[in-house]
Amino acid sequence: SGERLGGATPKQFCAVQGRPLVSYAVRAMERISWISDIVVVVSPENIETMKTIIEKYGHKRVTVVEGGITRHRSIFNGLKVFAENEFSSHLLQKPEVVIIHDAVRPFVEEDIVSKVVMAAKEHGAAGAIRPLVSTVIASAADGCLDHSLERARYRASEMPQAFLFDIIYEAYQQCTDYDLDYGTECLHLALKYCKTNAKLVEGTPDLWKVTYKRDLYAAESIIKDNLSQQVCVITNVKETLAQVGFLLPEYLKSQIKVEAISISLSKNDSCLQSIISGQCYNFVCINDKRWAIQETQELVDMLEKSNIPLLYPVVLILVHLDIPENNSFSIGMEDLTMIKKFARETKKKNILVYGLLIQYK
Amino acid sequence: SGERLGGATPKQFCAVQGRPLVSYAVRAMERISWISDIVVVVSPENIETMKTIIEKYGHKRVTVVEGGITRHRSIFNGLKVFAENEFSSHLLQKPEVVIIHDAVRPFVEEDIVSKVVMAAKEHGAAGAIRPLVSTVIASAADGCLDHSLERARYRASEMPQAFLFDIIYEAYQQCTDYDLDYGTECLHLALKYCKTNAKLVEGTPDLWKVTYKRDLYAAESIIKDNLSQQVCVITNVKETLAQVGFLLPEYLKSQIKVEAISISLSKNDSCLQSIISGQCYNFVCINDKRWAIQETQELVDMLEKSNIPLLYPVVLILVHLDIPENNSFSIGMEDLTMIKKFARETKKKNILVYGLLIQYK
Repeated sequence: SGERLGGATPKQFCAVQGRPLVSYAVRAMERISWISDIVVVVSPENIETMKTIIEKYGHKRVTVVEGGITRHRSIFNGLKVFAENEFSSHLLQKPEVVIIHDAVRPFVEEDIVSKVVMAAKEHGAAGAIRPLVSTVIASAADGCLDHSLERARYRASEMPQAFLFDIIYEAYQQCTDYDLDYGTECLHLALKYCKTNAKLVEGTPDLWKVTYKRDLYAAESIIKDNLSQQVCVITNVKETLAQVGFLLPEYLKSQIKVEAISISLSKNDSCLQSIISGQCYNFVCINDKRWAIQETQELVDMLEKSNIPLLYPVVLILVHLDIPENNSFSIGMEDLTMIKKFARETKKKNILVYGLLIQYK
Repeated sequence: SGERLGGATPKQFCAVQGRPLVSYAVRAMERISWISDIVVVVSPENIETMKTIIEKYGHKRVTVVEGGITRHRSIFNGLKVFAENEFSSHLLQKPEVVIIHDAVRPFVEEDIVSKVVMAAKEHGAAGAIRPLVSTVIASAADGCLDHSLERARYRASEMPQAFLFDIIYEAYQQCTDYDLDYGTECLHLALKYCKTNAKLVEGTPDLWKVTYKRDLYAAESIIKDNLSQQVCVITNVKETLAQVGFLLPEYLKSQIKVEAISISLSKNDSCLQSIISGQCYNFVCINDKRWAIQETQELVDMLEKSNIPLLYPVVLILVHLDIPENNSFSIGMEDLTMIKKFARETKKKNILVYGLLIQYK
């Protein structure tokens, strides 16, 4: 619980696109299959809030632990659930490597987590770093410049950091009350008490920490941007009638990155599979047949399996072309009613289904 | 011209709410009446762009100077226009104090500029500082942690900085090519070559530097936020008919900070004057009389004199209530046509006038 934001709500509980920041950070870790447990350390007064968030967003593998009065004391409490019975009703299995991350860094990707963990396995400790944005200076007692640091020689220490569990736990057990009360850097404890020089891993700009109100604005915009970067247009219509399936992607291309594929949804298409795993959140599905629940269900299942809707809502627009020359049936209100019912179910899985019926005259 | 943003457009020329960042930074300085000249140093390929920006946004007191290949060489070039004939067609008058600022820090307020300048007058040099957001670490040659700095002892050096002109100019004249090519910190040059320990002045969070794409997002949101923080509702109607003038502010209060005043616009009201100088960008003016150009003109003149519309657009909504019981004239289309014509003129001054005619039945 930082003090810099001013307001009463700790940053990690501030809503970004309607959802608390900490939920994004938990989800970012939860997406990574090889992470076995997630321990969230929160101050006593926020434990209930955190439990409500876990319930509401369906987070799994999460244990909530009461924090201490400083950063280091909170992290130490988090580590204890793997080692000391008194801190948890059931002791979690002690991991080989433990990752330490901030709730206010919601945009961490598996790639950097993996690099930091592998480096920790080899070196005992590792942490993400970034170039300094500003020159760092030391001030004298009179409030004047003492000296400035050569910017190129230093780095900002960011998160995630990872440690062999035994190393960081030993460091916390051995460190002094002064360390626990005034220190902030876990890498420093590993060095000081376990002679472990952490491996430093160059991180990406998205590791930044939400510190000020402007960072909440930025987080909001980044999320919106991620969601609207790409649309996948799936056409499932006869070639001779595929005008819409052709014109729509062409038109959208001027606004957004478009992946257009023409497939039969009933086949488990590898092309579609790769688009889904490429973090596409928007799908337009064009049909000239009566709505078939089964085909849509298959697409929804694919999306669900991909875990994509866990983090952000996925939008799926079902377009049904009712073309008289097609000599087909007429698509009527009962189809839309069925789509509505279907959409209510998928909404629970964070997949927002819209039905659009176009009748050609 | 930084290299961190990636894209082809240097950050300072990126548009925020349709306007280049550098224009906000120039305006932030231009608003301060005791700053006599503003020197903008830009790379050779951007000189024409910068001149176009100055023309387009009506910037005054600005001299454009060609930059060098590094930050220090560019700043040195900027200083030379006060001292060396060859760098400017007309030598600008040498100032007692010179402020050095970044084009990518658009939100600087007069208060901090003033504090830094006063400190520079007393100490010879001064600069704004901020607490460190991350711990700073030194890495060893093998890419491992060498040591971490105690966060509380260090500060981030930010902008603006200010110097007695003679001190910083001498520092630049004496410094080595190595300094000019690899250094980044002006305070360091003043210390090294003129034995001047700069006074460090605690800055506000809004001094932050637009460095990454997320910072552009944040800047955009901050500007939008500033513009929509406050609305001033001016009622100019008879008390018995003032229901709207009362209900509108009451309703708006749940959404936004509202200043409601009831005045005759023709008097040069000191209350209105103080609201205008308090950086209010939104005005709703409620009348039950036929539109009188003179009263609106007076309000527009007040706004223009305040310099507020120089930085951001000011919105002025003229609401005319046509109440039959009032036994008055009918307000018709010709009034709206006149308002439209008037609005076209004020738009050139960055004041956006809207007319709203409400006919009670």
